[in-house]
Amino acid sequence: MGALHEGHLSLVRHALAENTDVFVSIYVNPTQFGVNEDLDKYPKTWEADMAKLLELKKEFREKSEEGTAGEIAGIFAPTSKVMYPILPPSSEIDGDGSFVTITPMGKWLEGASRPVFFRGVATVCTKLFNIVQPDRVYFGQKDVQQSVLIKRMVKDFHIPTEVRVIPTTREADGLAMSSRNVFLGETRRRDVGVLSRALFAAQDAYNQGEVRAGQVRRKAFEVFDQALDKRDGAYFGNQKIEVDYIALTRFDDMTPIEDSASIDPSEGAILSAAMKVHPVTNPETEEERKQIPVRLIDNVILEPR
Amino acid sequence: MGALHEGHLSLVRHALAENTDVFVSIYVNPTQFGVNEDLDKYPKTWEADMAKLLELKKEFREKSEEGTAGEIAGIFAPTSKVMYPILPPSSEIDGDGSFVTITPMGKWLEGASRPVFFRGVATVCTKLFNIVQPDRVYFGQKDVQQSVLIKRMVKDFHIPTEVRVIPTTREADGLAMSSRNVFLGETRRRDVGVLSRALFAAQDAYNQGEVRAGQVRRKAFEVFDQALDKRDGAYFGNQKIEVDYIALTRFDDMTPIEDSASIDPSEGAILSAAMKVHPVTNPETEEERKQIPVRLIDNVILEPR
Repeated sequence: MGALHEGHLSLVRHALAENTDVFVSIYVNPTQFGVNEDLDKYPKTWEADMAKLLELKKEFREKSEEGTAGEIAGIFAPTSKVMYPILPPSSEIDGDGSFVTITPMGKWLEGASRPVFFRGVATVCTKLFNIVQPDRVYFGQKDVQQSVLIKRMVKDFHIPTEVRVIPTTREADGLAMSSRNVFLGETRRRDVGVLSRALFAAQDAYNQGEVRAGQVRRKAFEVFDQALDKRDGAYFGNQKIEVDYIALTRFDDMTPIEDSASIDPSEGAILSAAMKVHPVTNPETEEERKQIPVRLIDNVILEPR
Repeated sequence: MGALHEGHLSLVRHALAENTDVFVSIYVNPTQFGVNEDLDKYPKTWEADMAKLLELKKEFREKSEEGTAGEIAGIFAPTSKVMYPILPPSSEIDGDGSFVTITPMGKWLEGASRPVFFRGVATVCTKLFNIVQPDRVYFGQKDVQQSVLIKRMVKDFHIPTEVRVIPTTREADGLAMSSRNVFLGETRRRDVGVLSRALFAAQDAYNQGEVRAGQVRRKAFEVFDQALDKRDGAYFGNQKIEVDYIALTRFDDMTPIEDSASIDPSEGAILSAAMKVHPVTNPETEEERKQIPVRLIDNVILEPR
């Protein structure tokens, strides 16, 4: 979707290490945005994206030439007329069009608050795969539900490609890299490290032997409780933070693991979370007065053992 | 779907004429049958199907060997576990699963009375195309809405294949060949030629200059009126016949052409029809006493001129 950051570049690096010809797709896909969502606000940074990819191409030039790595063979940046020959594509959940739906996993977690999101993702990826016909496709673990859903789609539809999921790239304080982070601004940026710290704390508990689902999730909430003030079901620092979910789910189909159940250590689990960061409560600078709410997601893998 | 007849074999002949390696898929797809439809009753004739294909392979042997035609390289007859890795696939319209939907054209005509039908067709064809990766795919014009929908799907999803639509194969009296014809029995078989005669009469009127949509459709109904008794909105011969629809639609998206409108002769149109043939009113033989209702469809192309 453009607005490239180190997380995206990590996907490209992995692709270069494992393939001869790498195509980078950049396309802000309208069908995965709901009617009231932030399609127009999504950052578009074509010049900067190209500069970063050229830099990466240079960095790999020697390896590409000696054949120890692949090369960036092309950028695929289609128009919506190419991706959706019959325009405009619908952003309504019951709207008409040619769509791929993967349920029930597309209805949960991220799908619960964004009903058309995974339909848009599955549909655009189907088209992308058909056009590029890649041996391997690279997705970031940060969007874990997306990567599980794409794996399911590839399996169910017998798409001749291999899905590679690359670990999340993080800032120094643990914040998962995201194109939306640029909207945070300085003040809010200081508080949001709590999300990854909460997930890591729960992961530590699991790694030390805790398998009770409710206890693992509680470990994550304790980090929020310690870092921020809690009132009326939300957290408050320089701004209100609403935790949308902290959810334990199974690996293959992302079905939920209830609090009263235990994680099967031979299977492991995914602990994923989403939170909404509201504008700072007492804005002082021009930047703070113009803030919009930012929704952040993150996850950690509780590895099978 | 098996139960091969001359119409299917015509598809294979066309494929052999235009390709080197031809794969014949035989699979009775559960997701295109609704919960109360005739999946279990669908004729399964594996031995006879294989005999017909072997005969065809022999017929083409010389041409195949001299390279003037292709050869039947394989039969693709998967289990449902292959086609639907997560079993059982849902037959409910709001059921969960991994599905391809093409709307609105999948909701009209055949889709109106069979809400899951085209979802099942689009889904299974997506899988089939991904597995076989054919240069060309062959569909019969008899299922005209299906062929238009598959063309739309191939275009919208950028599926790298060419859709070939082969003219309907007919019995001597004009009846379009169909696996369901075997259910008719002798007595009912005598009356059902009315369907194609009605469509041909309307086509003749168009070819002689009639472009008023209502008048073209009326020509078709006149054939029913002359051949059968009409009462309470249905037709009666040896059995009750209900006309489900006789519909004029545009070529590319099958949108309806209203009776008050005119066909654009430079664009042409599709005239398609469906009728339900009830068991004979006064059954005399054992066969007649066991009859089930049979739904027949047919269509003619009003060619652009």
